[in-house]
Amino acid sequence: MSLLEDLKWRYATKKMNGKNVAQEKIDYILEAARLAPSSSGLQPFQIFVISNQEVKEKIRTVASNQSQITDASHVLVFAAWDCYTLERIEKMFNYTMKERGLPMDTMDDYKKNLWSMYEPLGKEWHFNHAAKQSYISLGMALAAAAELKVDATPMEGFEPLKVDEILGLRELGLKSTVIMTLGYRDAENDWLVDMKKVRTPEDEFFTRID
Amino acid sequence: MSLLEDLKWRYATKKMNGKNVAQEKIDYILEAARLAPSSSGLQPFQIFVISNQEVKEKIRTVASNQSQITDASHVLVFAAWDCYTLERIEKMFNYTMKERGLPMDTMDDYKKNLWSMYEPLGKEWHFNHAAKQSYISLGMALAAAAELKVDATPMEGFEPLKVDEILGLRELGLKSTVIMTLGYRDAENDWLVDMKKVRTPEDEFFTRID
Repeated sequence: MSLLEDLKWRYATKKMNGKNVAQEKIDYILEAARLAPSSSGLQPFQIFVISNQEVKEKIRTVASNQSQITDASHVLVFAAWDCYTLERIEKMFNYTMKERGLPMDTMDDYKKNLWSMYEPLGKEWHFNHAAKQSYISLGMALAAAAELKVDATPMEGFEPLKVDEILGLRELGLKSTVIMTLGYRDAENDWLVDMKKVRTPEDEFFTRID
Repeated sequence: MSLLEDLKWRYATKKMNGKNVAQEKIDYILEAARLAPSSSGLQPFQIFVISNQEVKEKIRTVASNQSQITDASHVLVFAAWDCYTLERIEKMFNYTMKERGLPMDTMDDYKKNLWSMYEPLGKEWHFNHAAKQSYISLGMALAAAAELKVDATPMEGFEPLKVDEILGLRELGLKSTVIMTLGYRDAENDWLVDMKKVRTPEDEFFTRID
């Protein structure tokens, strides 16, 4: 099947059936998330992959008690850097140079320019910027799950500060941005499963300048 | 090929060769972008699809003179709602109810809750939230382009206010968030084409809680 068919097949699953998703499928989806591009290649976020039922239950209590959290096989919590720092940027650039077999100073000018731009923008801007990068990765993970016919729910309906506390994110310099559950639909009990997928009509969504 | 192979194949193309991408491929990529999920299904953004060379040239002047803007076949400018309003939310919800053949008041409680949450958060929060949704769509479009072996460059290196002015976005209640060029690589002249794709190592990027 093509990506377009996969995207038509998928929907934000509201009721999952508790069945396990095979580890190799989880790993495939995670690898798609990891391969997502990000601004300057910094990948300013991490993904917490939760199959532990107790932790899922804790998260459910701060996510409007939505059942797919605990009925999912795995819950992915995307967590972005709370701010950019020169150290964080240097670490990723140095790693990139090393992997590419380039001199460590290859991107020094780029790095200086980037930091001189980022630093004055402040922590709130930093986090918002980092959070956006995690949404590209979310998109890739959703596409990968659909390709494997694994159901998924992208979720913003949770209390980020409380999820941060459950996962100990503050100590790691991270803040949760979005959740994605992975599992299998409980088709009989999901009100959304048979609803038409609705998107903004093409003529409103696109403006063509030829 | 699988999505994972497609994601390994793609890279942020720095030098394009000016060749045209067939309309059916552009349309396929746009449809993937349109099918991306968004928070509460609001799709709070639009996509400007630019093949006009003069407009591409204008954008290039406010995008650090990056050549892929004018050497691309098409330039997509993602533009998010500058803020949420009750009217914008109602329009999308009403359309959704109509498309699903449901009574117009089906989501009234949800809508009220949503607006009572969004309204006090203010315009800056609104725009940041809407912008994040456009990044999910960017992810889908990048995956679709890679599937078709169309090269693409996700770009944040532009002056958003000036792009907004070129496209007349302010009058539409929109603000540019991210650009994506579509075209074909000029492999001989692209410094990045043969570089190793570098991503954060798995053991740093993922935390598994089993």
